[in-house]
Amino acid sequence: MRILGIDCGSQFTGYGVIDTDGTRHRLVEAGVIRTSAKDPFSARLLTIGSRLREIAAEFAPDEAAVEDTFTSVNVRSALKLTHVRGVAMFVLAEAGMEVAEYPPAQVKMAVASNGRAEKEQVQWMVRVLLGLSEPIASLDASDALAVALCHAMRRPVKVAL
Amino acid sequence: MRILGIDCGSQFTGYGVIDTDGTRHRLVEAGVIRTSAKDPFSARLLTIGSRLREIAAEFAPDEAAVEDTFTSVNVRSALKLTHVRGVAMFVLAEAGMEVAEYPPAQVKMAVASNGRAEKEQVQWMVRVLLGLSEPIASLDASDALAVALCHAMRRPVKVAL
Repeated sequence: MRILGIDCGSQFTGYGVIDTDGTRHRLVEAGVIRTSAKDPFSARLLTIGSRLREIAAEFAPDEAAVEDTFTSVNVRSALKLTHVRGVAMFVLAEAGMEVAEYPPAQVKMAVASNGRAEKEQVQWMVRVLLGLSEPIASLDASDALAVALCHAMRRPVKVAL
Repeated sequence: MRILGIDCGSQFTGYGVIDTDGTRHRLVEAGVIRTSAKDPFSARLLTIGSRLREIAAEFAPDEAAVEDTFTSVNVRSALKLTHVRGVAMFVLAEAGMEVAEYPPAQVKMAVASNGRAEKEQVQWMVRVLLGLSEPIASLDASDALAVALCHAMRRPVKVAL
Protein backbone atom coordinates (compact mmCIF):
# COMPACT_ATOMS: atom_id res chain seq x y z
CA MET A 1 0.00 0.00 0.00
CA ARG A 2 1.44 3.36 -1.08
CA ILE A 3 0.24 6.53 0.62
CA LEU A 4 0.70 10.19 -0.28
CA GLY A 5 0.47 12.70 2.55
CA ILE A 6 0.18 16.42 1.92
CA ASP A 7 0.79 19.40 4.20
CA CYS A 8 -0.99 22.26 2.42
CA GLY A 9 0.27 25.82 2.39
CA SER A 10 0.25 28.63 -0.15
CA GLN A 11 3.96 29.30 0.24
CA PHE A 12 5.23 25.81 1.08
CA THR A 13 3.25 22.64 0.39
CA GLY A 14 4.95 19.57 1.78
CA TYR A 15 4.43 16.12 0.28
CA GLY A 16 5.52 12.70 1.41
CA VAL A 17 5.11 9.25 -0.11
CA ILE A 18 5.47 6.07 1.96
CA ASP A 19 5.00 2.36 1.40
CA THR A 20 3.35 0.59 4.32
CA ASP A 21 1.83 -2.69 5.41
CA GLY A 22 0.12 -0.93 8.33
CA THR A 23 2.90 -1.55 10.84
CA ARG A 24 6.13 -1.19 8.90
CA HIS A 25 6.68 1.90 6.80
CA ARG A 26 9.25 2.90 4.20
CA LEU A 27 10.07 6.35 2.83
CA VAL A 28 9.63 6.60 -0.94
CA GLU A 29 9.87 10.34 -1.53
CA ALA A 30 9.38 13.63 0.27
CA GLY A 31 9.73 17.24 -0.70
CA VAL A 32 8.29 20.73 -0.78
CA ILE A 33 6.50 22.69 -3.49
CA ARG A 34 7.46 26.35 -3.18
CA THR A 35 5.62 29.32 -4.66
CA SER A 36 6.45 33.01 -4.62
CA ALA A 37 4.22 35.54 -2.88
CA LYS A 38 5.09 37.88 -5.77
CA ASP A 39 3.08 35.75 -8.23
CA PRO A 40 -0.70 36.10 -8.69
CA PHE A 41 -2.53 33.74 -6.37
CA SER A 42 -4.12 31.75 -9.21
CA ALA A 43 -0.65 31.20 -10.71
CA ARG A 44 0.55 29.86 -7.37
CA LEU A 45 -2.42 27.48 -7.19
CA LEU A 46 -1.58 26.38 -10.73
CA THR A 47 2.03 25.63 -9.73
CA ILE A 48 0.97 23.62 -6.68
CA GLY A 49 -1.80 21.68 -8.46
CA SER A 50 0.34 20.88 -11.49
CA ARG A 51 3.23 19.64 -9.35
CA LEU A 52 0.93 17.52 -7.17
CA ARG A 53 -0.49 15.98 -10.33
CA GLU A 54 3.03 15.10 -11.50
CA ILE A 55 3.83 13.57 -8.11
CA ALA A 56 0.62 11.52 -8.21
CA ALA A 57 1.49 10.29 -11.72
CA GLU A 58 5.13 9.54 -10.91
CA PHE A 59 4.64 7.66 -7.63
CA ALA A 60 1.13 6.28 -8.22
CA PRO A 61 -0.01 6.24 -4.58
CA ASP A 62 -3.04 4.07 -3.74
CA GLU A 63 -4.48 6.56 -1.28
CA ALA A 64 -3.90 10.12 -0.11
CA ALA A 65 -4.35 12.03 3.13
CA VAL A 66 -4.47 15.68 4.18
CA GLU A 67 -5.03 17.49 7.46
CA ASP A 68 -8.66 18.48 7.82
CA THR A 69 -8.56 21.85 9.53
CA PHE A 70 -6.34 24.85 9.44
CA THR A 71 -4.05 25.67 12.30
CA SER A 72 -3.04 29.00 10.91
CA VAL A 73 -2.59 31.92 13.24
CA ASN A 74 -4.52 34.32 11.03
CA VAL A 75 -7.63 34.14 8.88
CA ARG A 76 -5.86 35.38 5.76
CA SER A 77 -3.32 32.53 5.86
CA ALA A 78 -6.07 30.06 6.72
CA LEU A 79 -8.08 31.07 3.68
CA LYS A 80 -5.07 30.79 1.36
CA LEU A 81 -4.31 27.36 2.77
CA THR A 82 -7.91 26.28 2.21
CA HIS A 83 -7.70 27.23 -1.47
CA VAL A 84 -4.57 25.06 -1.77
CA ARG A 85 -6.36 22.24 0.03
CA GLY A 86 -9.23 22.43 -2.46
CA VAL A 87 -6.78 22.22 -5.36
CA ALA A 88 -4.96 19.27 -3.75
CA MET A 89 -8.21 17.35 -3.16
CA PHE A 90 -9.36 18.04 -6.73
CA VAL A 91 -6.10 16.91 -8.33
CA LEU A 92 -5.90 13.76 -6.20
CA ALA A 93 -9.55 12.88 -6.81
CA GLU A 94 -8.93 13.36 -10.53
CA ALA A 95 -5.99 10.96 -10.25
CA GLY A 96 -8.45 8.40 -8.87
CA MET A 97 -7.42 8.57 -5.23
CA GLU A 98 -9.60 8.65 -2.16
CA VAL A 99 -8.51 11.53 0.03
CA ALA A 100 -8.68 10.91 3.78
CA GLU A 101 -8.77 13.85 6.17
CA TYR A 102 -7.36 13.94 9.70
CA PRO A 103 -7.45 16.65 12.37
CA PRO A 104 -3.92 17.90 13.18
CA ALA A 105 -4.21 16.58 16.76
CA GLN A 106 -4.94 13.10 15.44
CA VAL A 107 -1.88 13.21 13.19
CA LYS A 108 0.30 14.22 16.14
CA MET A 109 -1.29 11.58 18.36
CA ALA A 110 -0.71 8.89 15.73
CA VAL A 111 2.98 9.58 15.17
CA ALA A 112 4.09 11.08 18.50
CA SER A 113 1.47 9.69 20.95
CA ASN A 114 0.77 13.28 21.91
CA GLY A 115 -1.97 15.36 20.30
CA ARG A 116 -0.13 18.55 21.19
CA ALA A 117 3.35 17.49 20.11
CA GLU A 118 5.70 20.19 18.84
CA LYS A 119 6.75 20.20 15.17
CA GLU A 120 10.26 19.05 16.09
CA GLN A 121 8.86 16.12 18.07
CA VAL A 122 6.78 15.11 15.05
CA GLN A 123 9.87 15.45 12.86
CA TRP A 124 11.82 13.19 15.20
CA MET A 125 9.12 10.51 15.29
CA VAL A 126 8.72 10.56 11.49
CA ARG A 127 12.45 9.79 11.36
CA VAL A 128 12.10 6.94 13.87
CA LEU A 129 8.98 5.44 12.26
CA LEU A 130 10.59 5.45 8.80
CA GLY A 131 13.93 4.15 10.13
CA LEU A 132 15.87 7.05 8.64
CA SER A 133 19.49 7.72 9.58
CA GLU A 134 18.85 11.45 9.33
CA PRO A 135 15.75 13.56 9.97
CA ILE A 136 13.77 14.97 7.06
CA ALA A 137 15.28 18.43 6.63
CA SER A 138 12.09 20.31 5.80
CA LEU A 139 9.39 20.61 8.46
CA ASP A 140 6.76 20.84 5.71
CA ALA A 141 7.89 17.56 4.12
CA SER A 142 8.13 15.98 7.56
CA ASP A 143 4.56 17.11 8.38
CA ALA A 144 3.36 15.63 5.10
CA LEU A 145 4.99 12.30 5.99
CA ALA A 146 3.32 12.48 9.43
CA VAL A 147 -0.08 12.75 7.70
CA ALA A 148 0.78 9.76 5.49
CA LEU A 149 1.94 7.76 8.54
CA CYS A 150 -1.23 8.70 10.43
CA HIS A 151 -3.29 7.36 7.53
CA ALA A 152 -1.15 4.22 7.40
CA MET A 153 -1.71 3.51 11.09
CA ARG A 154 -5.28 4.76 11.44
CA ARG A 155 -6.94 3.44 8.31
CA PRO A 156 -9.42 0.64 9.00
CA VAL A 157 -7.71 -2.74 8.97
CA LYS A 158 -9.49 -5.19 6.71
CA VAL A 159 -9.48 -8.54 8.49
CA ALA A 160 -9.90 -11.64 6.34
CA LEU A 161 -12.01 -14.13 8.29
CA MET B 1 -14.14 40.26 -25.04
CA ARG B 2 -15.72 37.18 -23.46
CA ILE B 3 -15.92 36.94 -19.68
CA LEU B 4 -16.72 33.99 -17.41
CA GLY B 5 -18.09 34.82 -13.96
CA ILE B 6 -18.33 32.22 -11.22
CA ASP B 7 -20.35 32.17 -8.00
CA CYS B 8 -18.63 29.47 -5.95
CA GLY B 9 -20.47 27.13 -3.60
CA SER B 10 -20.06 23.50 -2.60
CA GLN B 11 -23.70 22.66 -3.28
CA PHE B 12 -24.46 25.11 -6.11
CA THR B 13 -21.78 26.77 -8.20
CA GLY B 14 -23.22 29.31 -10.61
CA TYR B 15 -21.50 30.25 -13.84
CA GLY B 16 -22.24 32.89 -16.43
CA VAL B 17 -20.58 33.78 -19.72
CA ILE B 18 -21.05 37.18 -21.37
CA ASP B 19 -19.68 38.99 -24.40
CA THR B 20 -18.93 42.65 -23.75
CA ASP B 21 -17.33 45.74 -25.23
CA GLY B 22 -17.23 47.36 -21.79
CA THR B 23 -20.57 49.13 -22.11
CA ARG B 24 -22.82 46.74 -24.00
CA HIS B 25 -23.14 43.18 -22.76
CA ARG B 26 -24.69 40.03 -24.21
CA LEU B 27 -25.60 36.78 -22.46
CA VAL B 28 -23.84 33.76 -23.92
CA GLU B 29 -24.58 31.08 -21.36
CA ALA B 30 -25.46 30.68 -17.69
CA GLY B 31 -26.14 27.74 -15.46
CA VAL B 32 -25.51 25.96 -12.18
CA ILE B 33 -23.26 23.04 -11.27
CA ARG B 34 -24.97 20.98 -8.58
CA THR B 35 -23.35 18.45 -6.25
CA SER B 36 -24.87 16.18 -3.65
CA ALA B 37 -24.01 16.55 0.04
CA LYS B 38 -24.16 12.73 0.18
CA ASP B 39 -21.01 12.43 -1.93
CA PRO B 40 -17.48 12.62 -0.46
CA PHE B 41 -16.23 16.20 -0.51
CA SER B 42 -13.32 15.43 -2.85
CA ALA B 43 -15.78 13.85 -5.32
CA ARG B 44 -17.86 17.04 -5.21
CA LEU B 45 -14.76 19.16 -5.90
CA LEU B 46 -13.97 16.82 -8.79
CA THR B 47 -17.46 17.33 -10.26
CA ILE B 48 -17.24 21.13 -9.98
CA GLY B 49 -13.68 21.39 -11.33
CA SER B 50 -14.32 19.02 -14.23
CA ARG B 51 -17.48 20.84 -15.26
CA LEU B 52 -15.80 24.26 -15.04
CA ARG B 53 -13.00 22.93 -17.22
CA GLU B 54 -15.58 21.81 -19.82
CA ILE B 55 -17.27 25.22 -19.69
CA ALA B 56 -13.92 26.98 -20.16
CA ALA B 57 -13.14 24.74 -23.13
CA GLU B 58 -16.59 25.08 -24.72
CA PHE B 59 -17.00 28.86 -24.43
CA ALA B 60 -13.32 29.89 -24.50
CA PRO B 61 -13.65 33.03 -22.33
CA ASP B 62 -10.81 35.55 -22.49
CA GLU B 63 -10.93 36.36 -18.79
CA ALA B 64 -12.61 35.10 -15.65
CA ALA B 65 -13.81 36.64 -12.39
CA VAL B 66 -14.83 35.37 -8.96
CA GLU B 67 -15.92 37.03 -5.73
CA ASP B 68 -12.98 37.46 -3.40
CA THR B 69 -14.39 36.85 0.04
CA PHE B 70 -16.96 34.59 1.53
CA THR B 71 -20.30 35.93 2.67
CA SER B 72 -21.35 32.70 4.27
CA VAL B 73 -23.21 32.77 7.55
CA ASN B 74 -21.11 30.03 9.11
CA VAL B 75 -17.44 29.05 9.09
CA ARG B 76 -18.13 25.51 7.91
CA SER B 77 -19.88 26.73 4.74
CA ALA B 78 -17.23 29.40 4.24
CA LEU B 79 -14.46 26.80 4.32
CA LYS B 80 -16.25 24.53 1.85
CA LEU B 81 -16.79 27.48 -0.48
CA THR B 82 -13.10 28.38 -0.23
CA HIS B 83 -12.10 24.87 -1.35
CA VAL B 84 -14.37 25.28 -4.38
CA ARG B 85 -12.87 28.69 -5.06
CA GLY B 86 -9.38 27.18 -5.03
CA VAL B 87 -10.45 24.52 -7.52
CA ALA B 88 -12.11 27.13 -9.76
CA MET B 89 -9.02 29.36 -9.77
CA PHE B 90 -6.77 26.37 -10.52
CA VAL B 91 -8.88 25.11 -13.41
CA LEU B 92 -9.24 28.58 -14.94
CA ALA B 93 -5.53 29.33 -14.55
CA GLU B 94 -4.79 26.01 -16.19
CA ALA B 95 -7.06 27.01 -19.07
CA GLY B 96 -4.84 30.07 -19.49
CA MET B 97 -7.18 32.65 -18.00
CA GLU B 98 -6.40 35.47 -15.64
CA VAL B 99 -8.78 35.33 -12.70
CA ALA B 100 -9.91 38.68 -11.32
CA GLU B 101 -11.34 38.89 -7.81
CA TYR B 102 -13.96 41.33 -6.56
CA PRO B 103 -15.43 41.88 -3.11
CA PRO B 104 -19.18 41.09 -3.06
CA ALA B 105 -20.02 44.73 -2.25
CA GLN B 106 -18.14 45.86 -5.36
CA VAL B 107 -20.10 43.40 -7.53
CA LYS B 108 -23.39 44.70 -6.11
CA MET B 109 -22.27 48.30 -6.52
CA ALA B 110 -21.25 47.67 -10.15
CA VAL B 111 -24.52 46.09 -11.27
CA ALA B 112 -27.07 47.62 -8.88
CA SER B 113 -25.36 50.88 -7.82
CA ASN B 114 -25.80 49.68 -4.23
CA GLY B 115 -23.13 47.77 -2.33
CA ARG B 116 -25.76 46.24 -0.09
CA ALA B 117 -28.30 45.29 -2.77
CA GLU B 118 -30.50 42.24 -2.15
CA LYS B 119 -30.04 39.15 -4.30
CA GLU B 120 -33.34 39.81 -6.09
CA GLN B 121 -32.25 43.38 -6.92
CA VAL B 122 -29.03 42.01 -8.41
CA GLN B 123 -31.04 39.45 -10.35
CA TRP B 124 -33.24 42.23 -11.74
CA MET B 125 -30.30 44.41 -12.79
CA VAL B 126 -28.53 41.46 -14.43
CA ARG B 127 -31.67 41.03 -16.53
CA VAL B 128 -31.74 44.74 -17.42
CA LEU B 129 -28.00 44.96 -18.21
CA LEU B 130 -28.17 41.91 -20.47
CA GLY B 131 -31.42 43.02 -22.09
CA LEU B 132 -33.19 39.76 -21.29
CA SER B 133 -36.93 39.37 -21.69
CA GLU B 134 -37.02 37.12 -18.62
CA PRO B 135 -34.90 37.06 -15.47
CA ILE B 136 -32.27 34.35 -15.02
CA ALA B 137 -34.18 31.71 -13.06
CA SER B 138 -31.35 30.62 -10.77
CA LEU B 139 -29.98 33.10 -8.24
CA ASP B 140 -26.60 31.32 -8.40
CA ALA B 141 -26.37 31.73 -12.17
CA SER B 142 -27.57 35.33 -11.85
CA ASP B 143 -24.89 36.05 -9.21
CA ALA B 144 -22.25 34.56 -11.51
CA LEU B 145 -23.40 36.87 -14.32
CA ALA B 146 -23.22 39.80 -11.89
CA VAL B 147 -19.55 38.98 -11.23
CA ALA B 148 -18.90 38.79 -14.98
CA LEU B 149 -20.70 42.13 -15.53
CA CYS B 150 -18.73 43.71 -12.67
CA HIS B 151 -15.51 42.61 -14.35
CA ALA B 152 -16.76 43.90 -17.71
CA MET B 153 -17.51 47.34 -16.25
CA ARG B 154 -14.65 47.60 -13.76
CA ARG B 155 -11.71 46.24 -15.69
CA PRO B 156 -9.15 48.90 -16.60
CA VAL B 157 -9.96 50.49 -19.93
CA LYS B 158 -6.98 50.52 -22.24
CA VAL B 159 -6.97 53.89 -23.97
CA ALA B 160 -5.11 54.16 -27.26
CA LEU B 161 -3.43 57.56 -27.42
